[in-house]
Amino acid sequence: MISVGIVGGSGYLGKKLVELCSGHPYIDDFDVYGNSSAGENLYSLFPEFHQLVTDKKIKSTNDLSFSHDIYFLALPHGEALKLVPSLISAGKKVIDLSGDFRLDSPDQYLKWYNIEHTSPELLKEKVYGLADLKDYKNETKLIANPGCYPTAALLSLLPLVIEWGNKIISITTVAYSGSSGAGKSPKVDLLLSEMDGNVKAYNVHKHRHEPEIFQELTRNGFNSDYTFTTHLLPVAVGIYETNIVYLSTNINQKKITALYNDFYSLSSFVRLRETPPQLKWVTGTNFCDINISVRDNSVIITSAIDNLIKGGGGQAVQNMNKLFGWEETAGLLTRREKNVSVY
Amino acid sequence: MISVGIVGGSGYLGKKLVELCSGHPYIDDFDVYGNSSAGENLYSLFPEFHQLVTDKKIKSTNDLSFSHDIYFLALPHGEALKLVPSLISAGKKVIDLSGDFRLDSPDQYLKWYNIEHTSPELLKEKVYGLADLKDYKNETKLIANPGCYPTAALLSLLPLVIEWGNKIISITTVAYSGSSGAGKSPKVDLLLSEMDGNVKAYNVHKHRHEPEIFQELTRNGFNSDYTFTTHLLPVAVGIYETNIVYLSTNINQKKITALYNDFYSLSSFVRLRETPPQLKWVTGTNFCDINISVRDNSVIITSAIDNLIKGGGGQAVQNMNKLFGWEETAGLLTRREKNVSVY
Amino acid sequence: MISVGIVGGSGYLGKKLVELCSGHPYIDDFDVYGNSSAGENLYSLFPEFHQLVTDKKIKSTNDLSFSHDIYFLALPHGEALKLVPSLISAGKKVIDLSGDFRLDSPDQYLKWYNIEHTSPELLKEKVYGLADLKDYKNETKLIANPGCYPTAALLSLLPLVIEWGNKIISITTVAYSGSSGAGKSPKVDLLLSEMDGNVKAYNVHKHRHEPEIFQELTRNGFNSDYTFTTHLLPVAVGIYETNIVYLSTNINQKKITALYNDFYSLSSFVRLRETPPQLKWVTGTNFCDINISVRDNSVIITSAIDNLIKGGGGQAVQNMNKLFGWEETAGLLTRREKNVSVY
Amino acid sequence: MISVGIVGGSGYLGKKLVELCSGHPYIDDFDVYGNSSAGENLYSLFPEFHQLVTDKKIKSTNDLSFSHDIYFLALPHGEALKLVPSLISAGKKVIDLSGDFRLDSPDQYLKWYNIEHTSPELLKEKVYGLADLKDYKNETKLIANPGCYPTAALLSLLPLVIEWGNKIISITTVAYSGSSGAGKSPKVDLLLSEMDGNVKAYNVHKHRHEPEIFQELTRNGFNSDYTFTTHLLPVAVGIYETNIVYLSTNINQKKITALYNDFYSLSSFVRLRETPPQLKWVTGTNFCDINISVRDNSVIITSAIDNLIKGGGGQAVQNMNKLFGWEETAGLLTRREKNVSVY
Repeated sequence: MISVGIVGGSGYLGKKLVELCSGHPYIDDFDVYGNSSAGENLYSLFPEFHQLVTDKKIKSTNDLSFSHDIYFLALPHGEALKLVPSLISAGKKVIDLSGDFRLDSPDQYLKWYNIEHTSPELLKEKVYGLADLKDYKNETKLIANPGCYPTAALLSLLPLVIEWGNKIISITTVAYSGSSGAGKSPKVDLLLSEMDGNVKAYNVHKHRHEPEIFQELTRNGFNSDYTFTTHLLPVAVGIYETNIVYLSTNINQKKITALYNDFYSLSSFVRLRETPPQLKWVTGTNFCDINISVRDNSVIITSAIDNLIKGGGGQAVQNMNKLFGWEETAGLLTRREKNVSVY
Repeated sequence: MISVGIVGGSGYLGKKLVELCSGHPYIDDFDVYGNSSAGENLYSLFPEFHQLVTDKKIKSTNDLSFSHDIYFLALPHGEALKLVPSLISAGKKVIDLSGDFRLDSPDQYLKWYNIEHTSPELLKEKVYGLADLKDYKNETKLIANPGCYPTAALLSLLPLVIEWGNKIISITTVAYSGSSGAGKSPKVDLLLSEMDGNVKAYNVHKHRHEPEIFQELTRNGFNSDYTFTTHLLPVAVGIYETNIVYLSTNINQKKITALYNDFYSLSSFVRLRETPPQLKWVTGTNFCDINISVRDNSVIITSAIDNLIKGGGGQAVQNMNKLFGWEETAGLLTRREKNVSVY
Repeated sequence: MISVGIVGGSGYLGKKLVELCSGHPYIDDFDVYGNSSAGENLYSLFPEFHQLVTDKKIKSTNDLSFSHDIYFLALPHGEALKLVPSLISAGKKVIDLSGDFRLDSPDQYLKWYNIEHTSPELLKEKVYGLADLKDYKNETKLIANPGCYPTAALLSLLPLVIEWGNKIISITTVAYSGSSGAGKSPKVDLLLSEMDGNVKAYNVHKHRHEPEIFQELTRNGFNSDYTFTTHLLPVAVGIYETNIVYLSTNINQKKITALYNDFYSLSSFVRLRETPPQLKWVTGTNFCDINISVRDNSVIITSAIDNLIKGGGGQAVQNMNKLFGWEETAGLLTRREKNVSVY
Repeated sequence: MISVGIVGGSGYLGKKLVELCSGHPYIDDFDVYGNSSAGENLYSLFPEFHQLVTDKKIKSTNDLSFSHDIYFLALPHGEALKLVPSLISAGKKVIDLSGDFRLDSPDQYLKWYNIEHTSPELLKEKVYGLADLKDYKNETKLIANPGCYPTAALLSLLPLVIEWGNKIISITTVAYSGSSGAGKSPKVDLLLSEMDGNVKAYNVHKHRHEPEIFQELTRNGFNSDYTFTTHLLPVAVGIYETNIVYLSTNINQKKITALYNDFYSLSSFVRLRETPPQLKWVTGTNFCDINISVRDNSVIITSAIDNLIKGGGGQAVQNMNKLFGWEETAGLLTRREKNVSVY
């Protein structure tokens, strides 16, 4: 049993981490840290927690205790960067849910985040924690939890890229997200009055998750044109992505299907589908549902995740599970059917 | 042809007034005044206006011109109060869409709005402008445009109250509104992330529209128990109200139906329905749709309006039409069917 | 450990029962029975069940096995009536989620359901299973699981009615429900294209849940005017109810609050709230959240439930738990926080 | 002034045509024809038409009068095919909103629609009516009104294809549509209960609008890889499309912007945007809003339309306006601002 520190507990990701840690079989206790929310109780911040989660007072990030075994950082970009070095120096495990350690190169931080990265050595040490592909046999202290969009994109694309990378002419990802991905700070653009029945693209050619996806694709052999376009859906939760790959040769549906089935044969949280997934199949779960359609030289891969769970807190817990050598599903499957093969 | 000043043009009500004035057959020109939005163009504030409305720069409320014939005030409560006396002194017509002049008594302002009313004489001079019941034969200078909720409640209840007031044991109004009624200022509570699939009651026993409704009911003979409960719907636009009246005697459906049909026989914007209305029948229009169901001594009256049109800018324009002696539908029916009787 | 038969497993209620039984700690195995869905697999009917629920083939209701310990009937009204007598004769426990046994009198079935009730003796034997008020010390074989609307209404009103029944002048319930309450059969009225951004009242003065509520209110001392008005919300899941009670005397907020706190002090699933509940606080849970607001002689009680869980399958499981003498929360709280008092 | 026949008036497209014809300045009278709806009144079918549109009885398609000047056919695919030849033979103008005449080749009908096309000569005579690109100087009798998806895709892509077709490596269209595009026939998949908060891809690699888009792209010089993927949004109305083009050379944003501005300089209904459009900017209008973003050799074009207006009835009316030589905006701009340049 371990003790956990959740830093940045008042936003949507923080809330999800509290829920998941609260029901986790190997977590003994946890503390929640915040800035503006310090001093408040969980119950006043999240009334839905009554009788589901033990109430506790949110502590100030300034008084962060070093007594926890692992830290989940759900902070705005730039804030994790200030906290991580001291935690790592103190020998703590850290799973950072911000973008501060996802990219490998300080140059990329200057270009995409407009920040001078102050811990370039930790950029090298960190592991990019795409949980369904990692086993952490060689333990790391610092896991950069993938962005919500990159999680769905990379799980969709990596098997194909690893196997056929040199035959890929171009990849295109078109992504739609629920509004919770934009956080809980009130902005006119995110009001129900603005978004009811509405849809819009945003940050075209400029979204910070693009270099993250591109880095991991190229690390695995991709070397061609890529674009990533994000849109806001009129729903609170979920990400739906459509990935279109053009190959320099025709390809066979059966071969691709077999490749993916093999690749994810041991995965508890990637479900391969014979039809395009529905967003509702995955919201509230840690699953990533994926469908692959092939015609001639084009492969269209649709995928869906819950942006706050598989694209955030759920994947963070899955990473923790792997880091500590527990079964990867611990605390992540709320229904405990006895005969299900994934256990 | 007249000139119009729209004061407070950057919120949802202001936007609606711009749309309606822009297409109005008897309005020659109009200016839009704002505070924080002063200096901006309509097109940058409302990109959907491109090619529909002539672009113009929003002027500062501080530089309000006295050259317009009539002023629509779409200001926060308390702000109209500062502006109205000078406009009335200057002989201008004013239609105030705030709550600042709706109540008759300064005491009520102290109690419900927590303000010391500074123009008690204008409270007496103003006309409460429930447009479908007024003809303004004796012209007024100051119209207090009814609140969105009171519009639907009073149109539903007044015929019954006027005729059967002394036999009414109690009236209950349960109202649901889209989020645009809460304005465009960003608040966490109004985010899509919070309201998607959500519903909540608010201001129970404390909503400022309650004394307004109660005042008009009692003015027309009601003298018994009344409550008014408001809820937020997960939609941007529309109000749906359910009014339940218990009588001290059984009543006949036919008699009530005849009463309402007679009462609204000349009305262009009240549509009596044989089934409960649907919210979508009225959104985007100046209609109030009403259905009456009777069983023994209970009468249930359901009604629906667009909170920004019939409950705001549309009723304001209808009031203006009547004030100037024009047909009440001028500028308010976008489809111009030639054979329709209401023209 | 027991064996369960779920009859009518392909609708929304049936699906919820499968989920709940699948994760229940004292259920060993269960079978699902259907008519049109017989022969299909759970996975093809509900693809979201993959890796969460063990797949199994839906059996035909015609081949219903009498080997189960208890039967949940999630059938259309009229169908349960045909099945219940033989199950009861065979000594089985039955929880009927239809309306077929909720009312006490065959006359009421003729009036409201337009059916000649064929098992009047079972109407008397059955227990109306409002789970949060029952302890089943004297065991019954047949539980009529309350309707979704009545569950929220009665939990809101009964403490007040029991204590102050003779001082109540009238009660009014205004209820809004998500579309899943109307079932899964495709109808134009229930299309997203019709209901997006829409609201409507329906079955005014004629909803079959009204006599059910009225019966339980009068059983507990109420004897005055009651109306019940239902509306459709543009959401899939959840019920929100506003109950307005006028008393013949003024009443004190503290007294009422104390009454309710006392009444539900041992309840695991009724949460009394200091503000009106939000629908999202309860969706996905078996909770009923209730707020009480008092002013003079009027009491306004707002409440929210998940119509498919607390208003259907969850309450049915809670009833089963009580019937078998298990803790009432078994299988109903997905988060298993160790220190929470309700365990 | 002309007389119009609207055939298939009870679906969502038919309803929109009734609204548009009803307010059109050059339409004297119109009749509505239906099959299952024959004999019903417009008011009973569309209660929202009360006081907006003159009521009339829907006539039977079997009794179709040949006395109208022009016919709008809003029929299921395959049905228009039966009706068009006789109307054309009788010298009538026809605007067909189905897919029956959009493709040029009978082979394509066999492949994509699985029908043997019975009027191959009319396939050649028809004009594919992308209204914003046509002037109909050489009059035609038969206009194939474009599909909803192709309208947005082609308006987005054609200027680029015409100018740079030989430098295009691939084009990808990812499209999201509101549910009204799937029609008014009740299906489980289209229930609010299924689609609330949901998203899904459908007909991947198999949507019938793909050959239509491809045909028009290739007619204008495109000759490379194309895919088209469609998704269902949890909204009733609107289409949002993201078009990604990879070029064999880098390209300059200014050059492309100038190209599009020039191409659409005389267009009343294409609005070029400096930011990605919002769906709500166009719903309820005949506009197509387009934004172009360039980086190196990739061009991302986002566009939004109302699927029932610009993607259906509005474009049909615009085509009629051009066919008769009227201003193209007749009946299509509900706000009649006097100074707007498009008049």
